[in-house]
Amino acid sequence: MSRVFIGLDVGGTTMKAAAVNDDGAALSKPVVLKTLPELGQEAGLATMCEAIRQAVAAASLAMKDIAAIGVVTPGLMDIREGLILDPPNLKPWRNVPVRDHIAKEFGKPTAFQNDANAAAYGEYWVGAGRGMSSLVMFTLGTGVGSGVIVDDKIIEGYSSHGGEFGHLRIELPDRGRLCGCGRRGCLEAYCSATSLVARTREALAASRQSSQLSRLLHDADGSAFTAKEIFAIAAEGDALAQKIIDDTAYYLALGCCAALVTVDPQIIVIGGGVSAAGDPFLTKVRAYVKQYGLTYPASRVRIEIAQLGSDAGFIGAAGCARKLVLE
Amino acid sequence: MSRVFIGLDVGGTTMKAAAVNDDGAALSKPVVLKTLPELGQEAGLATMCEAIRQAVAAASLAMKDIAAIGVVTPGLMDIREGLILDPPNLKPWRNVPVRDHIAKEFGKPTAFQNDANAAAYGEYWVGAGRGMSSLVMFTLGTGVGSGVIVDDKIIEGYSSHGGEFGHLRIELPDRGRLCGCGRRGCLEAYCSATSLVARTREALAASRQSSQLSRLLHDADGSAFTAKEIFAIAAEGDALAQKIIDDTAYYLALGCCAALVTVDPQIIVIGGGVSAAGDPFLTKVRAYVKQYGLTYPASRVRIEIAQLGSDAGFIGAAGCARKLVLE
Repeated sequence: MSRVFIGLDVGGTTMKAAAVNDDGAALSKPVVLKTLPELGQEAGLATMCEAIRQAVAAASLAMKDIAAIGVVTPGLMDIREGLILDPPNLKPWRNVPVRDHIAKEFGKPTAFQNDANAAAYGEYWVGAGRGMSSLVMFTLGTGVGSGVIVDDKIIEGYSSHGGEFGHLRIELPDRGRLCGCGRRGCLEAYCSATSLVARTREALAASRQSSQLSRLLHDADGSAFTAKEIFAIAAEGDALAQKIIDDTAYYLALGCCAALVTVDPQIIVIGGGVSAAGDPFLTKVRAYVKQYGLTYPASRVRIEIAQLGSDAGFIGAAGCARKLVLE
Repeated sequence: MSRVFIGLDVGGTTMKAAAVNDDGAALSKPVVLKTLPELGQEAGLATMCEAIRQAVAAASLAMKDIAAIGVVTPGLMDIREGLILDPPNLKPWRNVPVRDHIAKEFGKPTAFQNDANAAAYGEYWVGAGRGMSSLVMFTLGTGVGSGVIVDDKIIEGYSSHGGEFGHLRIELPDRGRLCGCGRRGCLEAYCSATSLVARTREALAASRQSSQLSRLLHDADGSAFTAKEIFAIAAEGDALAQKIIDDTAYYLALGCCAALVTVDPQIIVIGGGVSAAGDPFLTKVRAYVKQYGLTYPASRVRIEIAQLGSDAGFIGAAGCARKLVLE
């Protein structure tokens, strides 16, 4: 029997865990539990342990069958020390010794990693980046997560901020869109799903053009429409929606161009909700990278959609656990 | 006796070589020969071999005393294959198999690397970055060279463009200053020594302000003044010169901020002619990084002036040779 690892991906709303084998295949559907950070970090740690136990059971295994555990969380964190510091998505948790707690509870080697880094590692290990020497992943969701892998190594950074391309500035400071981090001009403020919706609202407010998009504003509650709906309307041929999608591809391409002159990866992988738009979106991104990127690396890099979907986090977490054992 | 390595740094005008010991100390003054790329690549390879022989002799050693050789050149190159491809500074050389030629000529393990990467490695090994886990170096000269080291590993990139921060865009495309690469908005177009001079000319043309700088325009030939002179005039208290230096620090800080969210190094090292301005310049760069960088990594990163000066290239080359032998 191949070795088995538990991957646990802790998010602000839910956490997902599953047993994953040496080939990166999940042995069951993931266990999903509510994170409920507001109940405090002791409760959070208990829920993590429960998710791990349930993931073992879901794969019809016993804890003795598990070689190692990988836990990944959103930042702010200290990866080397295995600590959650003060992450905005897990308030009011502070200075939570996740790695040591899990390692002690189960007596297993335990890896700890940033969630976006782990997703990148999952794609590198058994997803779109399988067989590549290096990878940069952009995950377009509420924010823009990213991770950098070079020769099987996650670029964690001295302050656990390696591969934070979401906060790479694509404009001079004090110009451009306001980011959640309080600064202006960050990539995240341009091509997250949140930004896509915000830019749509702004375009509708500014335009007198008739657009299918405007029907979104007249929905029952008028407040919530999603990137997915904008993509759907663009696919129907709506010009304004297409312009907004095209702008998103352009901004994301600028992030890719920055990746080319810093990391110069063999492949750039695009994940998250926005990436579900698939090939037409990808084609635009590739074209903008060719247009604006430094010629030689831009001509050689591959740009692909992620393959693991929302499983990338726990699969990558399991991959980090496996890497810990291999090393 | 400690092992000895030969480091050879090939530039467009001259090449420098020296024997370097296991502690990164040069065993003699470097041998300096003219590169004369216009004589063709066969002549160039012969000069490289001559420089290596002279460096061995200058250290009163024989070739049998040399453990390995490191050769570094400007791009465009294929680092993995040990090839110079088509570098603008070494015209008309094309597809020159530098590594294999040197290895065969001397029968020694031979490392090949990009010159800016090697300078960064030199600073990491025995310069400003000694003892640090990771480093990004910016070398401000005719262009802006850069190199990235993480855990003793040079981030070479899939297309040998890892750590090319000089071509990181700090403005949206089609805006901003024209770069030598033909694109607009690259960091290099803002904070190279060349740009410093160009921005000075522009400021003088646009300003009616009296400035000590204008005396530079009235020099004998009126065409050549240097970054060094601008720094000297700023140090005398000239407001316009100080503004130009301050702008340079601001632009360089934007490059540092990009380094923080991609590599997140423990130290950023600033080398090249512009860095000779020393502490007052460094103080400005640090302040702008604190102001514009992502808070947590910006509060932790060290920013220092390079220590190896123009020896960084051949010392780093020797370091690469040493690394080859160690691995």
